[in-house]
Amino acid sequence: MGKLSVTGIGPGGYEDMTVRAVRTLEACDIIAGYTVYVELVRPFFPGKTFLTTPMRQEEERCRMAFLEAENGASVALVCSGDAGVYGMAGLILKMQEAYPHVEVEIIPGVTAALSGAALLGAPLIHDFAVISLSDLLTPWEDIARRLENAAEADFGICLYNPSSRKRKDYLKKACDLVLGYQPEDTVCGLVRNIGREGEAVHICTLKELRDTEADMFTTVFIGNSRTREKNGRMITPRGYRNERKER
Amino acid sequence: MGKLSVTGIGPGGYEDMTVRAVRTLEACDIIAGYTVYVELVRPFFPGKTFLTTPMRQEEERCRMAFLEAENGASVALVCSGDAGVYGMAGLILKMQEAYPHVEVEIIPGVTAALSGAALLGAPLIHDFAVISLSDLLTPWEDIARRLENAAEADFGICLYNPSSRKRKDYLKKACDLVLGYQPEDTVCGLVRNIGREGEAVHICTLKELRDTEADMFTTVFIGNSRTREKNGRMITPRGYRNERKER
Repeated sequence: MGKLSVTGIGPGGYEDMTVRAVRTLEACDIIAGYTVYVELVRPFFPGKTFLTTPMRQEEERCRMAFLEAENGASVALVCSGDAGVYGMAGLILKMQEAYPHVEVEIIPGVTAALSGAALLGAPLIHDFAVISLSDLLTPWEDIARRLENAAEADFGICLYNPSSRKRKDYLKKACDLVLGYQPEDTVCGLVRNIGREGEAVHICTLKELRDTEADMFTTVFIGNSRTREKNGRMITPRGYRNERKER
Repeated sequence: MGKLSVTGIGPGGYEDMTVRAVRTLEACDIIAGYTVYVELVRPFFPGKTFLTTPMRQEEERCRMAFLEAENGASVALVCSGDAGVYGMAGLILKMQEAYPHVEVEIIPGVTAALSGAALLGAPLIHDFAVISLSDLLTPWEDIARRLENAAEADFGICLYNPSSRKRKDYLKKACDLVLGYQPEDTVCGLVRNIGREGEAVHICTLKELRDTEADMFTTVFIGNSRTREKNGRMITPRGYRNERKER
């Protein structure tokens, strides 16, 4: 019986993987996944067999991994960040009944909301919402409703997929919706290429974020009404009551 | 100059820590934190100096860690799950300017939303909101508003701190608010003692969740309108458009 381990690898560096992910990738026969993610881990696991599919061929990628596992291999299907959050875990579990002899396990990883937050400081200390701006599988109306509800309830907001070639103005549209509920000087942050070459962080206001061009390797953070910038760090307090004076 | 590393250790097992967290705890002089979390890592790092404070003494805990670092030690302040999400990163960064000679770094970790989701299957594949039901630092009215907004916008919802001795009925109150927007048969999940002794998962409906007693070691997941149970797993689809037939 083969085994399929849907494995969140974190943002990309070896140190950002969990010990479980490292051991799984060391022990497996085949590392499968989207080309870009497989290339991130390839240097750390020389001598493995690698199987890749291009972007958007998610079902084909899952089927390929299942077929190898059905033939008795242990396969690690790698996902950037977490295995679940906008990852492959759901599709794999949905497809699983067609491959009854394959054991499936899900290995969580540090998603960009967490790794990006650590680089910015502490933007997600309190309640937060994670929203993808990609409308490939979700109508924009649903995305817009979530942005408005999250802003209205004063959640910290983390945006995945803030832009792409075909949706250059989505971040601007998202900011306009949030600006209906939150002031222009709301503290925001952008993190680019987390854990990879070209890593960069930037803190700005919501008004400035509206006119910022993000790319698909950027994760965006919109603070709640209590979030502040302090010494170049984005910090959200632990609650809504006044914290006692620390010192 | 001392160093203070706010370190997310994940749910508690060695394998759930990132390589960076392991290396940090191996290299530091002192491991500090809330007693329960320090006890989780103590067996993996024998021979270290350990400093603990009881629950709710967060500011005292941070001050203690800073003072050791100011004296030149490298200190790892451990947080369960992530360093940021309901963790100590914010308070540390807020207090940092009183200790200008201490270098601070934030090391992210796998928060319970991710580790719990992996055990349940794939509940958080799409947009989701993380909400704590603890009203120690946040008025219940703010928590209630977030629950309603998250439910109205059809977010997957992950609840932290669903109960405690003093707030036995908070999970019930939260479910009642969500039931104003989502049907009784909404798929929900509970995960108890993630990565620790006594780990247990349970899938139920929102109506059943309303009458479930959770404790403070439980993380609760409320699916969105598309979440389904399949073969004992909680699965949320990747989007709101119909996915193509897989096979």
